[in-house]
Amino acid sequence: MTSPLSPLAPAAFPNLPAVAGVVPHVARARYKTWDRCDLTFVALDAGTTVAGVTTTSKCPSPEVEWCRQALTLGQARALVVNAGNANAFTGHRGRAAVEAIAARAAVHLGCQPSDVFVASTGVIGVPLPIDKAEAGLDAAFAAAECSWEEAAVAISTTDTFPKGAVTTAIVDGRTVTLTGIIKGSGMIAPDMATMLGFIFTDAAVSPAFLQTALAEANRASFSCITVDSDTSTSDTVLAFATGKAGNAPLSGDDDAGADAFRAALSDLCLQLAHLVVRDGEGATKFIEIAVTGAESDRSAHRIALSIANSPLVKTAIAGEDANWGRVVMAVGKAGEPAERDSLAIRFGDTLVAREGLVVAGYDEAPVAAHLKGSEIEIGVDLGLGDGKATVWTCDLTHGYISINADYRS
Amino acid sequence: MTSPLSPLAPAAFPNLPAVAGVVPHVARARYKTWDRCDLTFVALDAGTTVAGVTTTSKCPSPEVEWCRQALTLGQARALVVNAGNANAFTGHRGRAAVEAIAARAAVHLGCQPSDVFVASTGVIGVPLPIDKAEAGLDAAFAAAECSWEEAAVAISTTDTFPKGAVTTAIVDGRTVTLTGIIKGSGMIAPDMATMLGFIFTDAAVSPAFLQTALAEANRASFSCITVDSDTSTSDTVLAFATGKAGNAPLSGDDDAGADAFRAALSDLCLQLAHLVVRDGEGATKFIEIAVTGAESDRSAHRIALSIANSPLVKTAIAGEDANWGRVVMAVGKAGEPAERDSLAIRFGDTLVAREGLVVAGYDEAPVAAHLKGSEIEIGVDLGLGDGKATVWTCDLTHGYISINADYRS
Repeated sequence: MTSPLSPLAPAAFPNLPAVAGVVPHVARARYKTWDRCDLTFVALDAGTTVAGVTTTSKCPSPEVEWCRQALTLGQARALVVNAGNANAFTGHRGRAAVEAIAARAAVHLGCQPSDVFVASTGVIGVPLPIDKAEAGLDAAFAAAECSWEEAAVAISTTDTFPKGAVTTAIVDGRTVTLTGIIKGSGMIAPDMATMLGFIFTDAAVSPAFLQTALAEANRASFSCITVDSDTSTSDTVLAFATGKAGNAPLSGDDDAGADAFRAALSDLCLQLAHLVVRDGEGATKFIEIAVTGAESDRSAHRIALSIANSPLVKTAIAGEDANWGRVVMAVGKAGEPAERDSLAIRFGDTLVAREGLVVAGYDEAPVAAHLKGSEIEIGVDLGLGDGKATVWTCDLTHGYISINADYRS
Repeated sequence: MTSPLSPLAPAAFPNLPAVAGVVPHVARARYKTWDRCDLTFVALDAGTTVAGVTTTSKCPSPEVEWCRQALTLGQARALVVNAGNANAFTGHRGRAAVEAIAARAAVHLGCQPSDVFVASTGVIGVPLPIDKAEAGLDAAFAAAECSWEEAAVAISTTDTFPKGAVTTAIVDGRTVTLTGIIKGSGMIAPDMATMLGFIFTDAAVSPAFLQTALAEANRASFSCITVDSDTSTSDTVLAFATGKAGNAPLSGDDDAGADAFRAALSDLCLQLAHLVVRDGEGATKFIEIAVTGAESDRSAHRIALSIANSPLVKTAIAGEDANWGRVVMAVGKAGEPAERDSLAIRFGDTLVAREGLVVAGYDEAPVAAHLKGSEIEIGVDLGLGDGKATVWTCDLTHGYISINADYRS
């Protein structure tokens, strides 16, 4: 972690408990000329189920293609994460590297290669060196179990802090634990902002129900955050369920604890997603954008993302400028139903504009005070229907430009 | 023009000839506390036809709504442009201001208010002061004819240089002139990057054919430029044809000179569009992005804009970094058909990657040399079909952040 700590970082890494049936290890594969652990190997007990969501990019990495294929089987015995080399856009050589990693891990664990999930993040266009990966994997397998914090550090690239979260739920009369680590949107050219998130639970969950719950959680968390509108070729979130808690396996909505599990998974994903935004490159403000009164939830989501991705909105927040005109602009460009004359906008708790006009007697003082803080809320009501959505982003600052432009590869 | 001159500015304002039937004037309406002309009044002889394209924003300014309505009649006697106040998001008071301006100009000229076209750019959310507009209009009407350069300056807000272009065509055996002025993407919070472009020709052209030709020209020019992906509530391009050249009026593709006129209009629009990019906020590089081999032209256009709008691509160019991985990322996130393993990418004339891999023996030296210049070319071939498109943008620099964030309204 060489960059200055994000001012939005939490005070400390949380105390994450062990998850029965999950044993993380880290090792130095030395994918870059650095002296830190950059390979993470998580052993999973037999019987572990898995679900996942991956990037919508049309040019996904071979790791993403491998995981998509392996997810169709719904079972997992290992996760291998490489940091420092994304192995993306590397053609057949990149595919060979993923296959070699899966084969090597399978030999160690006595399982099928398709039971091994692989994710990589870092430089693009350079095939992952198979010799380093295999040596790193062997070292990780021989290493003692590590802490979740050590694993969260090892999967990071230019993140400025390790990211983890935990929650619990009562399922079938038993307390199950859900733990997650994630790495996000720190990047140094020519690296990319890959989001890799991994969730581990001791609950027993069928692959199909786990997939349903993860997809639902994803829609309200990872799909609702944006740092700069760019989409990695490698984004991957995987959820593993070992079943060691001994509950009757969750397989449908009618099962005891199904709702609690889904709620806990959604909560965990939201915690992890917010941590990614809090480490957005150059971020100094954490911004929540809530859109209400849209024609549909989908329309609200698109409008909210249009605001969140607007460079003019993001720079205005960076400048602590109550520039609601830019919010109007971003609503207008979203291409969704909107009526200027029914639009209302607030910053924090202060209504700034409504019915196509700035509010009578508008006093900027409380808005200016809100914008001086680091937690910013923008509310937009379209006055058209019941559709609503909330998304999160960060401001756009000189820090972003410095990280991404003041550099020569 | 108070900001430092864009390093991409042309050496001088071009020598623009008068256009028969068009008389520009400027005056000080003092929409802001500045001592400069900020109201432009262009008188047009009777018989002038008009066509226009306006913003796709769902929250357009009252000026845009007024022009859309007036365009349905196809005739024009005057253009009024206000700089310093966009009059957008101002509700009924904004509409009243536009109506008052059109009525006042109509009295001066003895025409209908619907013959008067109005455009405004500047601060948002503040109704245009009718008294200042009327006094300014009276002053402009009383003033002597001004030069095109004076008009180009008067329509500007935070542009760092005035923008104009000229071309000619042979139509029906006569040389017709097409002259244009435009203001673009300089902005200061809480102002917005409104693009206002005005084209004047002495050719005789039916409103319908003028609209067809302008729409075609727009598709390959103004619709192919982006500075920061944000869309103004006020973007407007209007074309006026006085008919003073005496050619048989152009009304269809089979008329003599129709092709020449269309080509000239397209050329003029492209010149004007490029000038807007060259004054992009903080721009230090003019970037051409050419996409070929897509499944369709539309698909190519969307992919090209995805690259042009990517903050990571734009910061890489600012940093003179041959970061083709970010181009792959931007192709992938466009959501259009793309195959990683058939993708080829070049910077300048140098092929960097093809068939899913960096080219064998890749030498970055010529690419680095190309990126040190101020005119950058990125080529992407998808290897899928015949679809192609070219768009233009600028880099994303500290200058953009300074202009848009280092400010408190």
